[in-house]
Amino acid sequence: MKTLLKNLTIIPMTEDGLSFTGDILIEGRDIAAIGPDLSSDAVDVVKDCAGRIAMPGFVNGHTHLSMTLMRNYKDTCSNLQEWLGQIFPIEDRMDDDDIYWGSMLGLSELIRSGCTSFADMYFHQWMTARACKEAGVRGFLSLTLFGDEEETKDRLSVRRMDEELDGDLLRRDLAVHAIYTCSDGTYRYTADWAREHGAIVNTHLSETRKEMDDCLKDNGCLPAFHLDRLGFFDVPCYIAHGVWLQDDEVALLRDKGVALVHNPSSNCKLASGIAPVSRFRKAGLTVGLGTDGASSNNNLSMVKEMRLAAMISTVSTLDVSALRPYDVMKMATIDSAKALHADDLVGSLEVGKRADITIIDPRKANMTPLNDIFSAIVFSMDEENIDSVYVNGRCLMEERRLLTIDEAEVRRQALKRWDRLRKED
Amino acid sequence: MKTLLKNLTIIPMTEDGLSFTGDILIEGRDIAAIGPDLSSDAVDVVKDCAGRIAMPGFVNGHTHLSMTLMRNYKDTCSNLQEWLGQIFPIEDRMDDDDIYWGSMLGLSELIRSGCTSFADMYFHQWMTARACKEAGVRGFLSLTLFGDEEETKDRLSVRRMDEELDGDLLRRDLAVHAIYTCSDGTYRYTADWAREHGAIVNTHLSETRKEMDDCLKDNGCLPAFHLDRLGFFDVPCYIAHGVWLQDDEVALLRDKGVALVHNPSSNCKLASGIAPVSRFRKAGLTVGLGTDGASSNNNLSMVKEMRLAAMISTVSTLDVSALRPYDVMKMATIDSAKALHADDLVGSLEVGKRADITIIDPRKANMTPLNDIFSAIVFSMDEENIDSVYVNGRCLMEERRLLTIDEAEVRRQALKRWDRLRKED
Repeated sequence: MKTLLKNLTIIPMTEDGLSFTGDILIEGRDIAAIGPDLSSDAVDVVKDCAGRIAMPGFVNGHTHLSMTLMRNYKDTCSNLQEWLGQIFPIEDRMDDDDIYWGSMLGLSELIRSGCTSFADMYFHQWMTARACKEAGVRGFLSLTLFGDEEETKDRLSVRRMDEELDGDLLRRDLAVHAIYTCSDGTYRYTADWAREHGAIVNTHLSETRKEMDDCLKDNGCLPAFHLDRLGFFDVPCYIAHGVWLQDDEVALLRDKGVALVHNPSSNCKLASGIAPVSRFRKAGLTVGLGTDGASSNNNLSMVKEMRLAAMISTVSTLDVSALRPYDVMKMATIDSAKALHADDLVGSLEVGKRADITIIDPRKANMTPLNDIFSAIVFSMDEENIDSVYVNGRCLMEERRLLTIDEAEVRRQALKRWDRLRKED
Repeated sequence: MKTLLKNLTIIPMTEDGLSFTGDILIEGRDIAAIGPDLSSDAVDVVKDCAGRIAMPGFVNGHTHLSMTLMRNYKDTCSNLQEWLGQIFPIEDRMDDDDIYWGSMLGLSELIRSGCTSFADMYFHQWMTARACKEAGVRGFLSLTLFGDEEETKDRLSVRRMDEELDGDLLRRDLAVHAIYTCSDGTYRYTADWAREHGAIVNTHLSETRKEMDDCLKDNGCLPAFHLDRLGFFDVPCYIAHGVWLQDDEVALLRDKGVALVHNPSSNCKLASGIAPVSRFRKAGLTVGLGTDGASSNNNLSMVKEMRLAAMISTVSTLDVSALRPYDVMKMATIDSAKALHADDLVGSLEVGKRADITIIDPRKANMTPLNDIFSAIVFSMDEENIDSVYVNGRCLMEERRLLTIDEAEVRRQALKRWDRLRKED
C-alpha cells in the first residue's frame, strides 16, 4: 500500500527551524520518500494536503493511560502524596475490562490531539496493548512495579503481555513506581530482569521536594545517585518529572544516557514545582515531554503541554530565549523519542522511519496569520487544528473523524466502568 | 422572539460551586427565566440541549483585538519594551480597513472559544464597533491614548465612535496606554474628560519590574500611587496586568474600586512575571481575566487563559487551594464583568441580565468522565468543546458553525491586509 500526501508544509524536526513545501510518500508502515513533486506512479492513494502542515506525531513521553477514567476525580488534594493516597485504592480495584476501556478512552484523546505514540506506566498492560493494536497507536507499555522484591517477582511472573506484542507497534518496558513506594531490592531486581530480557526501564524521579529531602535523610544522597548505586542506570532507562534534580544529578543522568521526560501540567497542578528544563538542556540532558495521567493534568493533550512548557519556562527564567517554540516542539517529538530510546523509529519525518505523522490545518481564525510557524504551533494551536493522524502508515484520523475507534461506544463503556469503580469508592 | 434552551446543566456563576439541571428562557436580548421544566408556551424556538452545559459567556477583560493581524510576528523579542518597539511602527500604518478585518478575524476567534464580550484597547475603534455589531459580539471599546495632553485632545476630538454606539451592545471607554508612554497631563486630561462624559477609563499598570523601578525613580512612588495622585482613580477605572503591584497598591486599588484584569499568557510569554492573583483576591481586590492581544499570547482563547491562570497560580504559590477552578471561572466571567463595571449586564446567568451564554458540549473523550465539572472546564476543556454561543439573545455560533461571520472571507481579507502591512515593515 502506497499513499502520497501532496503539497504540505513539512516540518521534519531534523534541523533547527527547518520547514519546506513538499510531498510525503508512505509505503507500508514507513516513510519512503520526502521531497518536492514526488511522482504518483504506482501510488494507491493520493491526497492533496495544500494549506496543511505535516510534522512528526507527538511522542507523549510519560502517561498513565487508563487513569483517564479518574479524570477530574479527587481534584482537591493539596499535594502528590495526598492525591496518591486517594487514587491507589481505586487502582487496586481496576480489572482487565476497566483497563481496556480506560485505554480506549485515552487513545481517542491522544489521536484527537495529534499524538502517535506514548510511554505508559500502568497495570494489566496487556489490555492496553490490545487497545493500542485495535486503535493503531504506538505504545511503549510499562508494567508498574510496587513494593518489595517479592511483589516484583510476582508481578513479573505474569507473562500475558508476551502474547500481545506485535512487531514494533508495541514495546514492553518496565516501570518501578518511585523510591518512596518501592524497595531498593525492587530497583535492583528490575534492572537485572531488564538486562536479562533486553528491556528498557523507567521510574518517577525527584518529583517533589519531599522526595528529595526524604532521600537525603534516608539514603544520605540525592535520588539520582541513590538509583545509580542500585544499578538502575546501568540498563537503558528514562525518568519522569525531575522537578528537583540538582546539577550533579543532571550531569550523572546525562553521562549515563538517561533522559528526562518533563510533565509541566502535572507538576504545576499538584504543586510539585517547575522543572528548570532550559538549564537541563543546556547541561546536555535530553528532555522529552509528557502529559502524565489525565487524573493529574487533567487531559492527555500534547498541544496543551507544549504551550504550558513554553510559558512556565519563560516566566520562571525571565528569559524568552531560554526555551524557544522550536525547542518545545523538539521536546514533544524527537527528544521524547530519544528519551524513550525510540528515535530510530519515530520522532522525526525521515525516510526509513515509521510513518507516524500529524497533519495540522492552520486555516482557522486562531492560526491566522501564521507568521512564525513554530510559535503558531506552540502558542496558537487548538486541538481542533489537528486534522489527520497516521501511525505506521495507517490513517487513524481524517479531518477529525476517528477511523479506528467508535467514539460513542468507547464513551459509553468507559462511563459504565467508571460508574462502578466510583460507587465502590 | 423567545428561545427556550432545555435540559442543560447550568452553571450560573452566582454562588460558589453551584450547578443544577434546568432550562433557560431567552426573551429578546434578555434571560427571562431559569429553572427546571420551563413551559414552552408561546416560545418561538425550543432547543433540546441535553448533555450540554450552559455558563455565562467569557468576558475577556483586556485585549487589543486587531493586533490579531500581527499574531506570531516579531516573536523573538526578549521583553515588553523591545517588543513594543517592533509593534508600534506597524500600528501607526494601520488604516480603517485593517482595523475592520483584524477585528473580524479576532471576533471569529472569540466566538469560537466561547467569549461573548471583551474590553478592547486600540485605535480606529469605530471600525471595531462596526465589526462587533455585524458579528453580534459585545464590546467595551477603548480608544488608546498616547503621548502628551495635546495629542490626547486631538485624538479625543475625533467623534466617529459616537455614530457607532448601539444600545448596550457597545460601550465607549478610554484607555491611557501606560505611564511610560503617556504624560501626567494625559492621565489628568483623560480623567477629566471621562468625568464630563460619564466614561470609564483603563490603563496598563505595573506590567514589568522596569515600569515599577522607573516610576519609583521618576516619581518617587509606586505606579498605582502615581496614578492616584493624577486623579485617574477618581473616575470609574480598571487596570490590566498588575504583575508587580505591591501590597499597599493593592489596598489602594481595592479602596478606590479599581479592579485588575490578569493576563497570564502575555505576562509569561513576554517574561514580565506572574501576578500573585490569589494574594490579590485574598486582599479583597476584584481580579478579572483577559487574553491581551494575539500578538503577545498568541491567541484570544479564554479557554487557554483559564487553564494557564490556574496552573501558574498553583505552582507559584505551591498551594493548590490558593485559586480553585471555580475561582478561575469567576475571574473569566463575573469578576471580569465587575472589573469592567458591567456586572449589571453580563458575567452570570440571572433573570434580567443579557442572554450572553456559552454552551459547552462535554461529550467528547477529553471531558469524559466529567467528575468535577469546574475542574473539567478549567483543566480538560478544548475550544472544540464550545458548542454554541449567544450574545444579547442572538445565536452567534451553533454546533461550531458561525452564523454571523463568513470565516473564509474574513480569513482572505485579513491575510490580504496583513500582507500589505508586513511588506511595508
